[in-house]
Amino acid sequence: MDRIHNFNAGPGVLPEPVLKQAQQDVWNIGGSGMGIMEHSHRGKLFERILNDAVDQARALAKIPDNYRVLFIQGGATQQFAMVPMNLLAAGRTADYLITGVWSEKALAEAKKFGTAHTAWTGQAEGFVRIPRPDEIRYSGDPVYVHVTTNNTIYGTQWQSMPRVPSGVPLVADTSSDMFSRPIDVAEYGLIYAGAQKNLGPSGIVLVIIREDLVARAGSSLPTMLHYQTYAKENSLYNTPPTMGIYLVGQVLKWIAQTGGLAAMAERNEAKAKVLYDFLDQSEFFRGTVDRSSRSRMNVCFRAPTEDLEKQFCAEAEKRGMSGLKGHRSVGGMRASLYNACPAASVAALVGFMKDFEREHR
Amino acid sequence: MDRIHNFNAGPGVLPEPVLKQAQQDVWNIGGSGMGIMEHSHRGKLFERILNDAVDQARALAKIPDNYRVLFIQGGATQQFAMVPMNLLAAGRTADYLITGVWSEKALAEAKKFGTAHTAWTGQAEGFVRIPRPDEIRYSGDPVYVHVTTNNTIYGTQWQSMPRVPSGVPLVADTSSDMFSRPIDVAEYGLIYAGAQKNLGPSGIVLVIIREDLVARAGSSLPTMLHYQTYAKENSLYNTPPTMGIYLVGQVLKWIAQTGGLAAMAERNEAKAKVLYDFLDQSEFFRGTVDRSSRSRMNVCFRAPTEDLEKQFCAEAEKRGMSGLKGHRSVGGMRASLYNACPAASVAALVGFMKDFEREHR
Repeated sequence: MDRIHNFNAGPGVLPEPVLKQAQQDVWNIGGSGMGIMEHSHRGKLFERILNDAVDQARALAKIPDNYRVLFIQGGATQQFAMVPMNLLAAGRTADYLITGVWSEKALAEAKKFGTAHTAWTGQAEGFVRIPRPDEIRYSGDPVYVHVTTNNTIYGTQWQSMPRVPSGVPLVADTSSDMFSRPIDVAEYGLIYAGAQKNLGPSGIVLVIIREDLVARAGSSLPTMLHYQTYAKENSLYNTPPTMGIYLVGQVLKWIAQTGGLAAMAERNEAKAKVLYDFLDQSEFFRGTVDRSSRSRMNVCFRAPTEDLEKQFCAEAEKRGMSGLKGHRSVGGMRASLYNACPAASVAALVGFMKDFEREHR
Repeated sequence: MDRIHNFNAGPGVLPEPVLKQAQQDVWNIGGSGMGIMEHSHRGKLFERILNDAVDQARALAKIPDNYRVLFIQGGATQQFAMVPMNLLAAGRTADYLITGVWSEKALAEAKKFGTAHTAWTGQAEGFVRIPRPDEIRYSGDPVYVHVTTNNTIYGTQWQSMPRVPSGVPLVADTSSDMFSRPIDVAEYGLIYAGAQKNLGPSGIVLVIIREDLVARAGSSLPTMLHYQTYAKENSLYNTPPTMGIYLVGQVLKWIAQTGGLAAMAERNEAKAKVLYDFLDQSEFFRGTVDRSSRSRMNVCFRAPTEDLEKQFCAEAEKRGMSGLKGHRSVGGMRASLYNACPAASVAALVGFMKDFEREHR
């Protein structure tokens, strides 16, 4: 058993060609006589790697010229603070759409730094769906609207972005569906994504920010929490996570080589459909979220009893399928089908689910 | 030419056995069927890796029980902010010993959050030495004293720690000499080190903090800038840089296997001595810092003219010796001899210097 089926919610599976290349490049990259992690971040080789990663992101998503592409540390959780610290001016209100625990954490962090308004929350319903447009109640004149595009714990995903009041920047945490489908960057003021689901390893966040939002904050912010620090110095104010940037660049190249975002979306759609179609006809397993809000990234489902769920996960492990246990806060099962998850893994999973259903129903 | 001599100031050379192991582990670690970067940070395998890294640090430096070992992102630069944000209470003063640009940056960041006092600065002298004890002027009752233990740009290093007023915590940026020699953790309140010189890749900082300093700050800090966030959750509040923690653990294991900190100090001392001894007798090359303050990590030296220096660096590259150009702010040459730099690299460098001197003097 060399490699198993990896359904982890993140960090998650990475593309095998990227890992093969990394095996070479940690020892000696491009015939330089040093591994990627041993190169100076100020050297020509790393400069090219960084610029290639930025260019690759720009090309994949057709990022308009008035947006900057930044690499920042600290995970999406640090963005929960950086967004309000940079954008939530005194006397203004920021609006948050609450579709899960990660939105709630973003909101709680914003409240440390200013006034934040809940424009909708699915909390009472257990976060099983995304709001309908008519349910959203924005505050009078929000300084930005924050949305979590995909909710890993519950398996819901915005199918299209919410309409926001005219001229108000939409800020999106896309940590779990970035570059899994085409994205119209011009719809957003700021997009951030922890890399460890669809883009690379943990420890690096991709940020795409409209230029007019870069320098809204004063110079009293901690240097590393100011977007301008990164924008001014091409993410090289201090030593960046060079291995992480290298890997994100490699993953983006792999996305481009396998057809770009539209092809990626088609494959992700097809993978998810196999599993949802099976769930829809199963008399044993059931999906947990509203059909209208189903995520193509994280498919959550239940079996008739918790004992059977425990048994299911244990037997799956034995068959080389890992990471299927649902988040501890909701229980059940969750299959994460990120970009690098092969269709063969989904087929293997559904095959096993059929066997399990036959045996136990 | 498979691997060359790497004298980079950081990110720098890593131990070859660690890289060999990483080549295997990015594909499939411990027979788990997944690479290290694809494992959940909440899974048993990563939990063991994290705990092993902490235990390894504790064992190497005999870290007392009342200190916590944390892994934080954002580089030492983020620590420049976290230290005062967590420790510099309103109405108090923090004292800074300024031995180079990194100390100056730490001081500037502290001034954003409170009152900071310069207890000594070598700026006027070009940072060519560490202060004598009688030159240091602390403020009345500092809340902490901050020191940069090794100064990469100039090649100076504190040979022993400064005496601080009784009961005042010493805070040390040890980014460029951590675990290069034995360290008496009890002398410090807080120690931080970006990993990318002696401990691993960039993108991860090792923090050792005395327990009473963990929760000095209120809850209004950004969550990711509060030491308590990391201390409470064993550095797992959010997804940490799993690859970085894995690599630091591997490097610490390598340090232990090669004899621990005392043996490491001996080897580092011996490597530096070869180069300093050569400089002391050379009639062509010259060292740039006060003998009393010489760094074992970064040896800075000059040739008679800038043209010869340029030629030296270019020829060195051709002979497979990289990273010898001095920092742009001071010019000249710099050989960084971190833990993983083999004695053979120093011998090769001195051999080349002899040839170059013979040819050009």
